[in-house]
Amino acid sequence: MNSFGQNFRFTTFGESHGKAIGCVVDGVPAGIKIDEEFIQSEMNRRKPGQNKYATARKEGDVIEILSGVFEGLSTGTPLAMIIFNENQKSKDYTNVKDLFRPGHADFTYFAKYGLRDYRGGGRSSARETASRVAAGAIAKLMLKEVGIVINSGISSIDGIEASTYDFKHALSSDIFALDKDLEENQKEAIINAKKKHNSVGGTAIVNVQNCPSGLGEPIYFKLDAQIASAMMSINAVKAVEIGDGIDSSKVKGFENNDQIRKDGFKTNHSGGILGGISNGDDINIKVHFKSTPSIFIKQDTVDINNEEVTCELKGRHDPCVAIRGSVVAESMMALVLADMLLLNMSSKIQNIKKVYNS
Amino acid sequence: MNSFGQNFRFTTFGESHGKAIGCVVDGVPAGIKIDEEFIQSEMNRRKPGQNKYATARKEGDVIEILSGVFEGLSTGTPLAMIIFNENQKSKDYTNVKDLFRPGHADFTYFAKYGLRDYRGGGRSSARETASRVAAGAIAKLMLKEVGIVINSGISSIDGIEASTYDFKHALSSDIFALDKDLEENQKEAIINAKKKHNSVGGTAIVNVQNCPSGLGEPIYFKLDAQIASAMMSINAVKAVEIGDGIDSSKVKGFENNDQIRKDGFKTNHSGGILGGISNGDDINIKVHFKSTPSIFIKQDTVDINNEEVTCELKGRHDPCVAIRGSVVAESMMALVLADMLLLNMSSKIQNIKKVYNS
Amino acid sequence: MNSFGQNFRFTTFGESHGKAIGCVVDGVPAGIKIDEEFIQSEMNRRKPGQNKYATARKEGDVIEILSGVFEGLSTGTPLAMIIFNENQKSKDYTNVKDLFRPGHADFTYFAKYGLRDYRGGGRSSARETASRVAAGAIAKLMLKEVGIVINSGISSIDGIEASTYDFKHALSSDIFALDKDLEENQKEAIINAKKKHNSVGGTAIVNVQNCPSGLGEPIYFKLDAQIASAMMSINAVKAVEIGDGIDSSKVKGFENNDQIRKDGFKTNHSGGILGGISNGDDINIKVHFKSTPSIFIKQDTVDINNEEVTCELKGRHDPCVAIRGSVVAESMMALVLADMLLLNMSSKIQNIKKVYNS
Amino acid sequence: MNSFGQNFRFTTFGESHGKAIGCVVDGVPAGIKIDEEFIQSEMNRRKPGQNKYATARKEGDVIEILSGVFEGLSTGTPLAMIIFNENQKSKDYTNVKDLFRPGHADFTYFAKYGLRDYRGGGRSSARETASRVAAGAIAKLMLKEVGIVINSGISSIDGIEASTYDFKHALSSDIFALDKDLEENQKEAIINAKKKHNSVGGTAIVNVQNCPSGLGEPIYFKLDAQIASAMMSINAVKAVEIGDGIDSSKVKGFENNDQIRKDGFKTNHSGGILGGISNGDDINIKVHFKSTPSIFIKQDTVDINNEEVTCELKGRHDPCVAIRGSVVAESMMALVLADMLLLNMSSKIQNIKKVYNS
Repeated sequence: MNSFGQNFRFTTFGESHGKAIGCVVDGVPAGIKIDEEFIQSEMNRRKPGQNKYATARKEGDVIEILSGVFEGLSTGTPLAMIIFNENQKSKDYTNVKDLFRPGHADFTYFAKYGLRDYRGGGRSSARETASRVAAGAIAKLMLKEVGIVINSGISSIDGIEASTYDFKHALSSDIFALDKDLEENQKEAIINAKKKHNSVGGTAIVNVQNCPSGLGEPIYFKLDAQIASAMMSINAVKAVEIGDGIDSSKVKGFENNDQIRKDGFKTNHSGGILGGISNGDDINIKVHFKSTPSIFIKQDTVDINNEEVTCELKGRHDPCVAIRGSVVAESMMALVLADMLLLNMSSKIQNIKKVYNS
Repeated sequence: MNSFGQNFRFTTFGESHGKAIGCVVDGVPAGIKIDEEFIQSEMNRRKPGQNKYATARKEGDVIEILSGVFEGLSTGTPLAMIIFNENQKSKDYTNVKDLFRPGHADFTYFAKYGLRDYRGGGRSSARETASRVAAGAIAKLMLKEVGIVINSGISSIDGIEASTYDFKHALSSDIFALDKDLEENQKEAIINAKKKHNSVGGTAIVNVQNCPSGLGEPIYFKLDAQIASAMMSINAVKAVEIGDGIDSSKVKGFENNDQIRKDGFKTNHSGGILGGISNGDDINIKVHFKSTPSIFIKQDTVDINNEEVTCELKGRHDPCVAIRGSVVAESMMALVLADMLLLNMSSKIQNIKKVYNS
Repeated sequence: MNSFGQNFRFTTFGESHGKAIGCVVDGVPAGIKIDEEFIQSEMNRRKPGQNKYATARKEGDVIEILSGVFEGLSTGTPLAMIIFNENQKSKDYTNVKDLFRPGHADFTYFAKYGLRDYRGGGRSSARETASRVAAGAIAKLMLKEVGIVINSGISSIDGIEASTYDFKHALSSDIFALDKDLEENQKEAIINAKKKHNSVGGTAIVNVQNCPSGLGEPIYFKLDAQIASAMMSINAVKAVEIGDGIDSSKVKGFENNDQIRKDGFKTNHSGGILGGISNGDDINIKVHFKSTPSIFIKQDTVDINNEEVTCELKGRHDPCVAIRGSVVAESMMALVLADMLLLNMSSKIQNIKKVYNS
Repeated sequence: MNSFGQNFRFTTFGESHGKAIGCVVDGVPAGIKIDEEFIQSEMNRRKPGQNKYATARKEGDVIEILSGVFEGLSTGTPLAMIIFNENQKSKDYTNVKDLFRPGHADFTYFAKYGLRDYRGGGRSSARETASRVAAGAIAKLMLKEVGIVINSGISSIDGIEASTYDFKHALSSDIFALDKDLEENQKEAIINAKKKHNSVGGTAIVNVQNCPSGLGEPIYFKLDAQIASAMMSINAVKAVEIGDGIDSSKVKGFENNDQIRKDGFKTNHSGGILGGISNGDDINIKVHFKSTPSIFIKQDTVDINNEEVTCELKGRHDPCVAIRGSVVAESMMALVLADMLLLNMSSKIQNIKKVYNS
């Protein structure tokens, strides 16, 4: 269950403090130019240790492609990519070796598996998401071939909500802020929480432009259902909204329906998805991340023998996981769309004739 | 892609105005008492035509089991169940035959498939969800064997939000209201909108009690990810929250973490899921439904030749799909948990020895 | 696990003596003319009770389509098809209710599930294969659109092996014999065994003409691997050969290699598949069926309490299951190819551009 | 489609002349002792370059585990394993860069993908099977916990067929010969063919002892169907037989049925599988490999522009791929059984109660 996708499918492996993490991307069509610089640039966007709004753990996150590419092109065979871990400090975790950090997966991994790799959260660490960004970069290279563009950014930090979404600005912001005017307030909220050994939550927006209509496989592989699954699988995500999301449950039908004219939809309350299928309009979603569970305040917990103890964390952690999380959300969107693009190839017999009768 | 689940998997078929709808449930363990009365009682909870808060379409929704049961017990072979459609009025749809109803899947089905069964929305109709309730009833019969209980109800209608959740009350309420004191207000909101040929949205709560810890398969089949997918696959759902959901992105880490004592978690902000795995506490989720797109107000749209036209709907529709939708959400939760229960069987080698060495 | 296929996927349900059997075919592209007469004619080829070389059980095997078709065309939604059982004689089985018939699945179903529907073998009966023929007919309707043709017939009965394969003759033969000159000998072998209350085995050939090159998904969904799985899943099949099969292990490499010229392969030892991918040449396979386990000679066995007993069968059975099995093998081939045809759509980025950029 | 298995699933990657090959094994239960020496010893059995009956290519095939193991035990997270390629001689392939080697996948990969990594056959090389042996070793470590034992060996080379099967002898034989008395003849056949720049085929036997009854998921994931798929996915395999295989189609039902007594089956014609489910008796199968297509005799072929040319191979190749292939077949059997073992966990409600109510 470490795989995602049906026809464009990737599998990830690796623990936070193991030798390496990585992924195998299967179902990549042959003939795509695999631009390694682009893949690395995607990795760098998510990379830790770049500024004071992220964890101090320094990882080069240098991606190495092991297979699936020949003379610069994808060959149709699986692309394996590997990232060697460099900057583990496993000692930081010896004091939490036998206890369950509140808000973390320690308790549940132990319950499920009967043992766990406690170093840095092991497999449950957000470090795993680096592999998703690598896989997502491959997906993006494919989506580019049909003109699909994906944007993302942070709309809200600690409840401070953006009133405009400027995806260009987000690219150059240390916290991927979508609203330039609120950026400083949002940064301050992070620093303040950090000073008090606490953490904050936040919200990421993902936007898709130029998506063809028809993507999404009803009934149980709807585009929005698979997006929801993809986003909720990201560490710390607790809510996903499509289009107007919760607001759609508070307005009347007439206000919420997107009426249609020759040149397209008059509004986009639906977020570009109707009946689980893309309608050609922009896809817009919101992904809400809880505040980082790793905080440096004393907390009550129990150990693996169910004895009551106190938990005091060491280590290096993101004061707000939403920030780097937004890059992961963007990558997951690319991976969902890549899969849906391939699946939709056979929706009509005309398409099949197009491919085989020429 | 009309199947859901990995080991406990169901497949549905059928259109709103076709001969029949139904499902095939695969992976049901042998030896479960298949209580047909219970299955029918579940069907009746979702059944249309029961009061003025639902569509006037009258369907008996009588379920017939075709296979997989012998002498009252499941045999391990697929359970096929069928419901014959009775009360179709396909004529109501002749005027929308060639145009796309705003807020509906008409546009996208046509874009994807090049043709569509326009009668009652065809496959995209919420009628399909009757099959999910039938499958969900089988899941519940299995979950009962290990003591898992699922509750649901409506917390919010048209923005009127419950302040208490009384699942017992919901069972006897015409709108499955969780808050007795607000029930009348919520009903009024529905009737008012209906009078104005408009519709309202709403929010359902699903709660799980007595769920064992350990359910959920990281990383890409996490319990919350699969719940999100399940819920978002329900017609009209636009947002899903796990535990405190969006609120978790607005409070600090210390406030959001659930600290632990000998006898369990001190709070349950997480909604019973950590790292994608159940922690033994109650699972709590919120499912937000948009207001019904079928309204009787004139709307702008285009026809299949992209000519601009006006859309005036006839037919019988729920003024608030969230109500009957809450039963579907509850069923989908049962189906997710049934699957996760089976998948988790092999999490540890000890379990395997328990089954094979005795 | 009652489903087969990845993108073109069908699910079957039903027991030999239950109310009905049937299937749900998912992933059928929209816009295919669904010719019901053709589907029924396929059913009739496999139908029991047609001559003395098959079981006397008379089943109309009338297929009814419940969904997925609108105005004669597939809509892209699942096609459910149902066949009501008519001619069950469950009483024939009361004497074997508590014992395990040798050569049958009685023993293993009981071991696996702890109980079983003993009437006519329940789910393990070859009656299930009627559903495959229905699904296979849908697959054939799709394959026809790109010109693929599938033939089949019986090459060997009780060790009497054909020296020529005449697929046209097979169509009109009561035993689907490929070799007109041996047909009488083969029929005699069947009748002789029947007289002695015994049974015979046989071998079916499936041939595919006009298959495009490129079908098959390496490494673990190779065309030949999936064909082998499909054939071995048919009741009583014990061996599958691709191309020259076992003979390929007995000749030298130079003799076995198919050399190539401008206009194609000089020979076809490979059976049209290289590296798990179709090469454009005819696909040829052999499917070997064991002799029918249902015989009317006294046999030793045990009952469900492991007491030693004697088994004397009643009922109506095929003296040679290979005959009607050949139609099933042909259907399974169609289903494999349909799936591979869809999967191969996205092998190259050029195909994707063809579909989306027009 | 580079993954195999449902619950115990592995994915492989890598090309013959790429940087590395490897696999990710998912679904491994936690708590299994991961004996690295054993894994390496399995790799060594398949390793090339060990004697004159195999290719001269020397590969250390040193396996490195990257994830999924902590303090010597499996953790329930994916086990990634990597093998760096060492002894590639890509130059050997420059002369076949633009042409299709007869009997190889060159033609079909080019047809399917529009391009190919020609070096050593790229992904279609049998080098990929090293990854299967690594994954198979993990499966074996799990099977050992419930006492399942798998044996293999070579029964036939170039048509010289063993009359006895001595699995112990096979372990120490350079060609894994099952029949000591014929071993020299079989070796001679290989050497003779090699001298004439030709190659031979052969047959491997896989035997499973102590397999619990109940493994196999009807109808489309039957144990024998999945074994057939697994075996046919191995390079050069052209036929698979279960139990008596083809012979079962030549004898009468009474002769072929395995009658049953208190202490088990009187015979084992079925090969330990009835109705697609293991019956507790030994599982026996035969896997037939074609003669190696890489030969050093001039052959006719075409190039990528469909010009007729002559093909003269260089490089280092196994004169008989069946030999090392038998180890791969054994590994695939382990992988199939591991998956079936996990899937069968939930066949009865009693098993589920055993796991959850204790």
